[in-house]
Amino acid sequence: MTSDLRAALDPSSIAIIGASENPNKIGGRPIDYLKRFGFRGEVYPVNPKRTEVQGLRSVPRLADLDAAPEMAVVAVPGDDAIRALDECGEMGVKVAVLMSSGFGEMDPVGGKAKERMMTERARARGMRIVGPNTQGLANFGTGAIASFSSMFIEVEPKDGPVGIVSQSGAMSVVPWGLLRARGIGVRHAHATGNDADVTACELAMAVAADPGVELLLLYLESIRDPHHLAEAARIARKRGVPIVALKSGRTGAGQSAAKSHTGALANEDRVVSAFLEQHGIWRAEDNAGLVEAAELYLKGSRPSGRRIVVVSNSGATCVMGADAAVAHDLSLAPLSDGTQAKLRAILPAFAATANPIDITAALLTNSSLFGQILPVVAEDPAADAVFVGIPVSGRAYDVEAFARDTARFAQETGKPVVLAAPQRLVADAFEAKGIPVFTGESAAMRVLHQFIAHHELIARAAARDEKQEPIDPPAGESRLLDEAESLARLAAAGVPVVPHRLCRSAEEAVEAARAFGGPVAVKGCSSGIAHKTELGLVHLGLADEAAVAAAFAACEAAIAAAEAPFAGVLVAPMTKGRRELVLGAHRDPVFGPVILVGDGGRYVEAMPDVRLLLPPFTREDVRAALGSLRLAPLLDGVRGEPPLALDPYLDAAAAIGRLMSEPGSRIDSIDVNPILVGARSEDCVALDAVVVERD
Amino acid sequence: MTSDLRAALDPSSIAIIGASENPNKIGGRPIDYLKRFGFRGEVYPVNPKRTEVQGLRSVPRLADLDAAPEMAVVAVPGDDAIRALDECGEMGVKVAVLMSSGFGEMDPVGGKAKERMMTERARARGMRIVGPNTQGLANFGTGAIASFSSMFIEVEPKDGPVGIVSQSGAMSVVPWGLLRARGIGVRHAHATGNDADVTACELAMAVAADPGVELLLLYLESIRDPHHLAEAARIARKRGVPIVALKSGRTGAGQSAAKSHTGALANEDRVVSAFLEQHGIWRAEDNAGLVEAAELYLKGSRPSGRRIVVVSNSGATCVMGADAAVAHDLSLAPLSDGTQAKLRAILPAFAATANPIDITAALLTNSSLFGQILPVVAEDPAADAVFVGIPVSGRAYDVEAFARDTARFAQETGKPVVLAAPQRLVADAFEAKGIPVFTGESAAMRVLHQFIAHHELIARAAARDEKQEPIDPPAGESRLLDEAESLARLAAAGVPVVPHRLCRSAEEAVEAARAFGGPVAVKGCSSGIAHKTELGLVHLGLADEAAVAAAFAACEAAIAAAEAPFAGVLVAPMTKGRRELVLGAHRDPVFGPVILVGDGGRYVEAMPDVRLLLPPFTREDVRAALGSLRLAPLLDGVRGEPPLALDPYLDAAAAIGRLMSEPGSRIDSIDVNPILVGARSEDCVALDAVVVERD
Repeated sequence: MTSDLRAALDPSSIAIIGASENPNKIGGRPIDYLKRFGFRGEVYPVNPKRTEVQGLRSVPRLADLDAAPEMAVVAVPGDDAIRALDECGEMGVKVAVLMSSGFGEMDPVGGKAKERMMTERARARGMRIVGPNTQGLANFGTGAIASFSSMFIEVEPKDGPVGIVSQSGAMSVVPWGLLRARGIGVRHAHATGNDADVTACELAMAVAADPGVELLLLYLESIRDPHHLAEAARIARKRGVPIVALKSGRTGAGQSAAKSHTGALANEDRVVSAFLEQHGIWRAEDNAGLVEAAELYLKGSRPSGRRIVVVSNSGATCVMGADAAVAHDLSLAPLSDGTQAKLRAILPAFAATANPIDITAALLTNSSLFGQILPVVAEDPAADAVFVGIPVSGRAYDVEAFARDTARFAQETGKPVVLAAPQRLVADAFEAKGIPVFTGESAAMRVLHQFIAHHELIARAAARDEKQEPIDPPAGESRLLDEAESLARLAAAGVPVVPHRLCRSAEEAVEAARAFGGPVAVKGCSSGIAHKTELGLVHLGLADEAAVAAAFAACEAAIAAAEAPFAGVLVAPMTKGRRELVLGAHRDPVFGPVILVGDGGRYVEAMPDVRLLLPPFTREDVRAALGSLRLAPLLDGVRGEPPLALDPYLDAAAAIGRLMSEPGSRIDSIDVNPILVGARSEDCVALDAVVVERD
Repeated sequence: MTSDLRAALDPSSIAIIGASENPNKIGGRPIDYLKRFGFRGEVYPVNPKRTEVQGLRSVPRLADLDAAPEMAVVAVPGDDAIRALDECGEMGVKVAVLMSSGFGEMDPVGGKAKERMMTERARARGMRIVGPNTQGLANFGTGAIASFSSMFIEVEPKDGPVGIVSQSGAMSVVPWGLLRARGIGVRHAHATGNDADVTACELAMAVAADPGVELLLLYLESIRDPHHLAEAARIARKRGVPIVALKSGRTGAGQSAAKSHTGALANEDRVVSAFLEQHGIWRAEDNAGLVEAAELYLKGSRPSGRRIVVVSNSGATCVMGADAAVAHDLSLAPLSDGTQAKLRAILPAFAATANPIDITAALLTNSSLFGQILPVVAEDPAADAVFVGIPVSGRAYDVEAFARDTARFAQETGKPVVLAAPQRLVADAFEAKGIPVFTGESAAMRVLHQFIAHHELIARAAARDEKQEPIDPPAGESRLLDEAESLARLAAAGVPVVPHRLCRSAEEAVEAARAFGGPVAVKGCSSGIAHKTELGLVHLGLADEAAVAAAFAACEAAIAAAEAPFAGVLVAPMTKGRRELVLGAHRDPVFGPVILVGDGGRYVEAMPDVRLLLPPFTREDVRAALGSLRLAPLLDGVRGEPPLALDPYLDAAAAIGRLMSEPGSRIDSIDVNPILVGARSEDCVALDAVVVERD
């Protein structure tokens, strides 16, 4: 499909249906832009009432043109827009940019139906639609500005290495404006509106493939075609293009607002995060976050690790820089004795040479100190990146020299460098040399962390690089398996489960308890009941036969009272591990299978300490996920405990990932809680499980 | 002591010892500033080699002056500085600003000793010292600029409502520069350097009392006189002056850097946070955070709650604004039906009127919409504060009108208002009207949250307003009490403890177990052993007499092997509550008694979910602390559980707070873990305790 979108980004000719003489009208502005920003193709205004629009020859109807334009901008309202689209399709237009609003965003039933109808008719004729309700597309590489955004009047456009694809019109130009204000050129600023046909994710594939694009920014309110986004990420990775995405609707309040705004369905936010991470896409928090690392990305440096060297002319900034590094999950590079000796030879006796490096006020009298110490830092293999803090400087300092020396260091070493400088004077000098500048230490370190951690994400995504096809969810009626069936299904998949016996009578239960020896658990087993505890179907630590028999009777009675089928009771030896983990899986309606790993037990919802993983993933991905959790310190053992033997759990998680994603899988969801882990591999057993399958 | 510091802020005359003709030298710059920035008192240069300095008559020695100046700036190095201080003291100078460096920051032993000596001699003569190693004091209200900072050359000073007190020279002027760049006037920018005598906290008391100060900013690397800071906070609260403090050395890396920079001792960071919170001081993360809410504070609005109204001309910004509100612990104000009906009458049919309010692109054609809807919002009692987002605007909009209408709303209602506007054009118009402006939605909401939450903190601090005297720690040898003694001490203080018996023989232990009935715990009791589990001194769930006797023998043997005194074993019934909490206390060397509350159990250090409280606090403070923890959802009961009966725990925490802070308290530390809580008050019992006392 991507090939179709060549005409969306680089059309040889553009017709504007509803062309206006007034450049402030929706049908007038694109014409003005096309004339102004160097579009080399033909522009055809279409307006039944005029013969000329903005100095260009105009035709009354599209059909009056000699040949079909590659792109048509539709800027007429309501049903006229639908008719115009039909004409475009008939004539052989490749891409229609449907600016008109009043469809799905106004009326989630009738409007969406119209969108589906228009899309079907267009596709039948080989035409793609961008929109409706879109501000339009803008490619400053080709001058194809099929957009009515006023931003391109407010700020002078400049072609450059950034691409922006957004569902929202405002958010297609907000990052554009922020980047342009910092002098950065932006090639693409596309809004896709209601995504009736071409989605933001699909368009992102085409933009990621543009050889002029080095950084791709996305704004998304609703994702419904994750496979397109996954493919965009794959294309971008191959080209070394980082993607930063702002996906809004993170909270319930945001999702409600989005629904009233576009009518689009909400995605489950933690699944969105897992998906973006899986594909090496950095998730930004807001519009400022979308662009704040742009300079760092565009410098082309490649981070080698998280060990930072902090350099400042102020002791206070050294302290705050060290604090900020650690607070943002970075560490201070341990400089070698040799490095420190060289630094001591350069700096005054009272300067600190263990990282942070405090140049002190000596910088005032010797402006070459930056230039002298940075090459020393460059030679230390522990220095992965450099943070420079210049809280106070002024006319008495040779700020130009600091900036020049820092820029040379950055260029020669390829190490990422950021500057924290609250003074405009200093910031300007460094920005002029291409060094990313921030007011505060925290912001500088946050962005440095983003840059480094994002490259780690990309590397992990690249390691599992495979083209992903959407996994179709199973059809049919969903059916809850009882615990015995559930455990059997899991055991068959390779998940270790507690030894147990399904017993149909009190006698069988007593016999099973006797066979296991020691205290047992007795649990009522029914395919009609998912939550056993609440119904009194869980009897633990039964040490004598009378208790077992009584538990059987209680379970049978409780299940009868719940009017659910009674499959018997499950008898199992009481088993304790050191920690109760959870292992779960469900199918997200958009993103497909999602596997949940983390801390288990009774309060898994009330106090969640879990991560989501999307297949395909490896056992090492599971280990990394656990290592990112609050419970991480327990994995290695604390207070004299031996480490937890995690291998069976990691294998079980990987097995569930495969089980959910293998072709023809009929499983809807899996909930294993708890699954025990302890010091020995054999400690790992699933104690309880609920599986839901499709018939 | 504060009265002494009047002369630090408003001296009638200033001598500069080491006066220089060159305004770029340390001894020259203050003279230049005093002449330039309107100091109305006398300025006396002191220089043995000159008769005139910078156009002022100079004397060779301080003693040559007719009368003592109120302030003397000392800008001569090393031992000359010590001699100069002596001369100042003899002559009757009230405050010496000792700019000279080379004392405690260079040599933590000899240098600190010199600082103590200078301070003692000065105090004996009624003189106070600011410094050494200080950049100096700057009061733009009086023109008393006894500072050599170059910042006052870089940016034009302007007197205004902000006071800054900083231990670091750089950090006394970085916030100054950031505020001045935003047009905000700053009266005080003081650096206290090594804090040998006058500390930053003590000087903050004097600045907080200045009637011209409306906002006080502090930068601290080391706090050693918290009672001064508490008093500064009390004075500020009485005057309605919020305090924002940046305390660096938050991390181990930062503390190491601070130590090499100033030689000052590190504070325990979480105690610093608890202390600042206790006194209603907002803790900023970095220099940007120190100033980012300044406009909001200075507007003088008083927040009434956390319910925000989000207004924008962009649906995407409505979504992001809603997300950001919730992410920053705010909520969306539920607008009444009446309010929404009024909004519908104003806005187009497709605009959203449930909060967020989406004005839509209709704003382009009707610039009065802001002015019409804000008064409607003003009347809704649910609207505590307003967030306005204008992501895109331009020449076609009447931005001036939006800004004017918004400013009128803010002024007439007193409700806090913030704007998120990435475009300079929009930001400038609103800033000109005094509305706080941010680039991104997150920053705007973060600052709004700071403003609201800070006022909540201040209100809580005001409610417990009492002058606090430092609590002297007990002297003497510290002694670990054995568990029986520890439980007795706690029980006497009103903490519920598990029933138990101390048994000296296996027979006594068996008898005790029989008396309790049911399984028991047997624990070895020794005043030489704090951690029983590791030594095998904890035997749980013993159900028969042989096991109890064996446990006694094992404990006796283990304690003998550890060569510790054997006090017997503690026998107690096995007791289970729903949750194991912790309750602890220790004495911070700087901040005094600190009480720890929160989740307990084996992993209290590995996975901490705790809060610190400083006395005095109430049981409601304890409840609020628990409510801020990860375990908060469990307090009300989840999955059908009844709420936890917390009263005995709250009382116990309050009792421990009193126990630690009452005059003559001999207790060093308390560690109660676990203390059980359950559905009934009587479920609350301390199961284990270690108390350390001074003899």
